[in-house]
Amino acid sequence: MTLHDEIFEQPLRLGSLLGQRQRVEEIAAAVRRREVRYAFLAARGTSDNAGRYANYLLGAQNSLPVALATPSLFTYYQQPPRLDGALVVAISQSGQSPDIVSVLEEGRRQGCLTLAVTNAPNSPLAQAADLVLDIQAGEEKAVAATKTYTAELLALAMLSAALKNDGEMWNDLERLPAFVEEAIAQDGAVAQMSQRYRYMQQCVVLGRGYNYATAFEWALKLKELTYVIAEPYSSADFQHGPIAMVGGGFPVLAVAVNGRVLDSMLEMLTRLRQVHNAELLVISDDERALEPAQSAILLPAGMPEWLTPLVSIVPAQLFACHLTRAKGYDTEAPRAIKKITETH
Amino acid sequence: MTLHDEIFEQPLRLGSLLGQRQRVEEIAAAVRRREVRYAFLAARGTSDNAGRYANYLLGAQNSLPVALATPSLFTYYQQPPRLDGALVVAISQSGQSPDIVSVLEEGRRQGCLTLAVTNAPNSPLAQAADLVLDIQAGEEKAVAATKTYTAELLALAMLSAALKNDGEMWNDLERLPAFVEEAIAQDGAVAQMSQRYRYMQQCVVLGRGYNYATAFEWALKLKELTYVIAEPYSSADFQHGPIAMVGGGFPVLAVAVNGRVLDSMLEMLTRLRQVHNAELLVISDDERALEPAQSAILLPAGMPEWLTPLVSIVPAQLFACHLTRAKGYDTEAPRAIKKITETH
Repeated sequence: MTLHDEIFEQPLRLGSLLGQRQRVEEIAAAVRRREVRYAFLAARGTSDNAGRYANYLLGAQNSLPVALATPSLFTYYQQPPRLDGALVVAISQSGQSPDIVSVLEEGRRQGCLTLAVTNAPNSPLAQAADLVLDIQAGEEKAVAATKTYTAELLALAMLSAALKNDGEMWNDLERLPAFVEEAIAQDGAVAQMSQRYRYMQQCVVLGRGYNYATAFEWALKLKELTYVIAEPYSSADFQHGPIAMVGGGFPVLAVAVNGRVLDSMLEMLTRLRQVHNAELLVISDDERALEPAQSAILLPAGMPEWLTPLVSIVPAQLFACHLTRAKGYDTEAPRAIKKITETH
Repeated sequence: MTLHDEIFEQPLRLGSLLGQRQRVEEIAAAVRRREVRYAFLAARGTSDNAGRYANYLLGAQNSLPVALATPSLFTYYQQPPRLDGALVVAISQSGQSPDIVSVLEEGRRQGCLTLAVTNAPNSPLAQAADLVLDIQAGEEKAVAATKTYTAELLALAMLSAALKNDGEMWNDLERLPAFVEEAIAQDGAVAQMSQRYRYMQQCVVLGRGYNYATAFEWALKLKELTYVIAEPYSSADFQHGPIAMVGGGFPVLAVAVNGRVLDSMLEMLTRLRQVHNAELLVISDDERALEPAQSAILLPAGMPEWLTPLVSIVPAQLFACHLTRAKGYDTEAPRAIKKITETH
């Protein structure tokens, strides 16, 4: 199994995870029995980007604020905050990183309900948790995470639907594997497009709202695999300073999908093209967003906004994979990183 | 008043803000009268980096978890989370950005206690808040924020001391202006050092714990002023993927000060130098951290760790200022950005 294979495996894995609805509803019932005021969430790397999705998802669909943990307060500083009222959630593919396990253990010590979202149901993380949501993505061999990222997003999306007890959300979820399949069909076009970026050394990646997470995850894949300095931003944070970096020809990658933040993304893309003369590579389901772009990747029509991050990341993964090959690097052996990173 | 002047103004401004202890203690008393479970914090740009400091500070000193707001949930999505139990804090130099004002207004609508930390006590933000902490930094003319950043940090540090009612913290605070003065005395050395980076186009900036905020703020100054693609990381997040970018000669800027996370930073710096053959520019009060660096900036001895971000950012500001000049850009007129950015 190569990175490319694992990207292609996603519709199958997501379809199979959807079969776990009952288990997710049990977890949601356990959460509802507690007086939860906010979610306190610990994760690193790709899983941290799943946390960024949770921030919007649980906020918008479940009215639940999300605090992202600063694990060093639990480890090096040994001064964890008071967590009463928190649902403590840890997200980790491997369930191994000691700092993430520490956050969950402290949550439990303080009497909070704890939930591990992981691909390793026998890991130290799972053992430390009251509730375990097994993302069932199968073994991930590639160092760069792809199928475990979308499985983590789906696990969170199912949890959100279950907490809200919302039949329409469940109907949306059923349509997900077909959307992902459609996105994967862009593989040949994306491979061809990646040629143009053979000598790209740096770029920014923009997304907003639900797809803030997609910008971060796309940037992370580029850094891990292609060694491009790819910096992710919300289009709003980008205006508060960093936009100064953009000169003529500077590459801006963007995810701009239909929904509440599309207009603000369109405004930003037009400005970047017309005023800054930037190079634009855009992933979108809307022609207006693709129009100003030198490179355009069309997403399936008709996706509900809250699920778009599970689809829009797929051509981004393919782009990172093909750009790695175009640059002559090895998709299966990125330098300097390992599959499991243990930090304290 | 130029950017350089405003950097030099900091000891004076911080000393004068320290005179507001009584006002800060009144605010702390108002907070203590409420059953606050966590802080919900909204900010953008430089002020968001002050929020990153608050995350560690309020966590470690006041056992208070901090959730960083996602303002688009309040504006574009109009689906704000339930905020019961939250102290809603907004940080903004100008107090103008509509999205940040929206978060505070929603907090008030939901009956939460709201606090504005701002340099503009008559701004829309201040008018929307129950409590206003005026950072009194004087008008900031330079587009790139410097003295308002350290004043925001000090306002938060005073609030933390007042909430904890901790005499030792207040004693530490009294020593702050002298430490900042000592850091500023490095100006000539930093100007000379910046020459070496005349052609640097990209870098990463590392910090951890309290100085996670410093890494982000240093990177932001470089992006705003020198157009260098500077990407900030905690040394832990950096290991979870992005370290793959670092090849021989790749510039890594780091803040590594005495305290709980120093050992982990030392380990990372040694690895970057010995294994990755990176170029290191290090700001530290510890010889062991400066030893492997091609460029070393020594901080004053004897600083309490929790206050180091107010001092360690100063040579970083000077570095960004001098590198801007070395590259032939205008410190007073960064391209593409304005002093007040209004986002929705």
